[in-house]
Amino acid sequence: MARIALDAMGGDLAPAAPVAAALLAARELGAEHTLQLVGRTAAIREHLDAQLAAAADRDTLSAAAARFELIDASDVIEMTDKPSVAIRGKPNSSMAVGIRLQAEGKSDAFVSAGNTGAQMAASTFVLRLHDGLTRPAIATVFPTARQPVVVLDAGANVDCSAKELVQFARLGSVYARDILGRANPAVGLLSIGEEPEKGNAAVKQAHQLLLGAGLNFIGNVEGRDIPHGACDRGPVDVVVCDGFTGNVLLKFYESVAPMLFGMLAKAGVTREQLGAVVHAMDYAKYGGAPLLGVRGVSIICHGKSSPEAIKNGILAGLRAVESGMSRHIEEQLAP
Amino acid sequence: MARIALDAMGGDLAPAAPVAAALLAARELGAEHTLQLVGRTAAIREHLDAQLAAAADRDTLSAAAARFELIDASDVIEMTDKPSVAIRGKPNSSMAVGIRLQAEGKSDAFVSAGNTGAQMAASTFVLRLHDGLTRPAIATVFPTARQPVVVLDAGANVDCSAKELVQFARLGSVYARDILGRANPAVGLLSIGEEPEKGNAAVKQAHQLLLGAGLNFIGNVEGRDIPHGACDRGPVDVVVCDGFTGNVLLKFYESVAPMLFGMLAKAGVTREQLGAVVHAMDYAKYGGAPLLGVRGVSIICHGKSSPEAIKNGILAGLRAVESGMSRHIEEQLAP
Repeated sequence: MARIALDAMGGDLAPAAPVAAALLAARELGAEHTLQLVGRTAAIREHLDAQLAAAADRDTLSAAAARFELIDASDVIEMTDKPSVAIRGKPNSSMAVGIRLQAEGKSDAFVSAGNTGAQMAASTFVLRLHDGLTRPAIATVFPTARQPVVVLDAGANVDCSAKELVQFARLGSVYARDILGRANPAVGLLSIGEEPEKGNAAVKQAHQLLLGAGLNFIGNVEGRDIPHGACDRGPVDVVVCDGFTGNVLLKFYESVAPMLFGMLAKAGVTREQLGAVVHAMDYAKYGGAPLLGVRGVSIICHGKSSPEAIKNGILAGLRAVESGMSRHIEEQLAP
Repeated sequence: MARIALDAMGGDLAPAAPVAAALLAARELGAEHTLQLVGRTAAIREHLDAQLAAAADRDTLSAAAARFELIDASDVIEMTDKPSVAIRGKPNSSMAVGIRLQAEGKSDAFVSAGNTGAQMAASTFVLRLHDGLTRPAIATVFPTARQPVVVLDAGANVDCSAKELVQFARLGSVYARDILGRANPAVGLLSIGEEPEKGNAAVKQAHQLLLGAGLNFIGNVEGRDIPHGACDRGPVDVVVCDGFTGNVLLKFYESVAPMLFGMLAKAGVTREQLGAVVHAMDYAKYGGAPLLGVRGVSIICHGKSSPEAIKNGILAGLRAVESGMSRHIEEQLAP
């Protein structure tokens, strides 16, 4: 059984969207799991009641919702708050309270669509990093023509050393195994050519370090390989890059597919024709990006997340808990 | 009138593709312009004759081809040659000879689908950089939902200082004005958030320098803005980034669109329906990427370029010559 804390005040559409996400999750989660809704209890209760009243399946749903734990947190971190200010100035925010639950042994995972910087700072500060890490990393899942690939870091670290890139490779390998079910994840290092001597200084050094890291390192991969989920040497499961490149690429990808679909719709392709491909490219179903490296589980969702996307974040948190991901990361990092 | 030197031995499909490109260009170029085919003259002549014999319009085309200058160069730089070795070891390569023509005042532009590293090295060494520059930059044109944007650097420089990013902004502005016809090009700095304090160390410093650079700097843009050709603050003409990020993004973009089209075709969308959008996303029509910053014109085409793409590279070279782009870059860089 897992206890998953949800930041009910986090995100552009909070608390409506997180509350709706909790109800969606309640329909899928076994009764052995507990959802902990963290935030201003009165507001949460009000949204819960309204949404339950409107639900077609309100009788069964009310029974599931009755098992929610409502955990009061008086402060709200705004999307525009600076992370450091948010953490120091709002110790009773839903984010701080929700993450502290894990440190206190009262929860197993935290999920938020709130201020990403604040979530990273609070998760790192409160949960602390596993030994052997200098930075946490945000892992994102990119849809590809084959199976999805994990790309990390996607924005937690902008200037990365070669050693940090190797750390990301270790984190991504465990994620790919535990969450995506890849047996022996193939790790590629994102660069501008497949030869080991291609890349910026950190990447060239990381390539050498990765050769001896005990991972299934398949060498450099290029931007062109990601949409295929494979390079010339075979399938890729994990793509390692600094958080600047990863963040640029992630936002580019999230924008280019809808842009192309929009152009196609204007050119007369119907919604039905686009359907399957739009669905395949839909990030929402991957449910948030885990902040890897912290002792525990912290799942970052987009500020604009739909209830469906946050629900998938909750399910991703559950998978992380059930697979023992954090413990496996600790083992992977052990010298 | 312009004299454009074409590397007849450059590219995966040379000399067939460059020769075919020359014939395509001959159909479009006015008789006042001269195409200079550089390489092993016998091989060029053989391909020319064979292609002319097969052309439906061979009579008019032969007249145009008769105006080609064939310039002999005995060496060929292979795609796998290291740039430094290629330049030092093969002084009579089609690339070295073709670029030297410009330095000697016998040509106005050089176009090649050959070894990019060698072309950059030879162009920089032979033509030299304009005063005020430490590095040349490769400018690429990204199709967007609006008009295309120039993204640079796309791979000439992997580790870039803030000052170099500002140089790229100057180069890109002139390119957008001279080649794309933008009156007052809006320059965005690629970063991971629109706030000036977002980004890696070089980007944050470049942001401050760009505020006082006398350009139409519109601040940071994000990966998501590129496919739209615009950010919240309006249209974007030039996107400035280091060559690592730019190269990753370029290759990703070139790969993701065909990947999506392939998925759509499998899902039953017809070739006719895809047609207009596939065409809009077709890089070939932008015809190569200029190496900006050298005293002269050097157009880099993909190694896999089709004759059509190389022909467009020739036309891009012509526009660069006719617009006085290199002189305008010199003026833009003048203190």
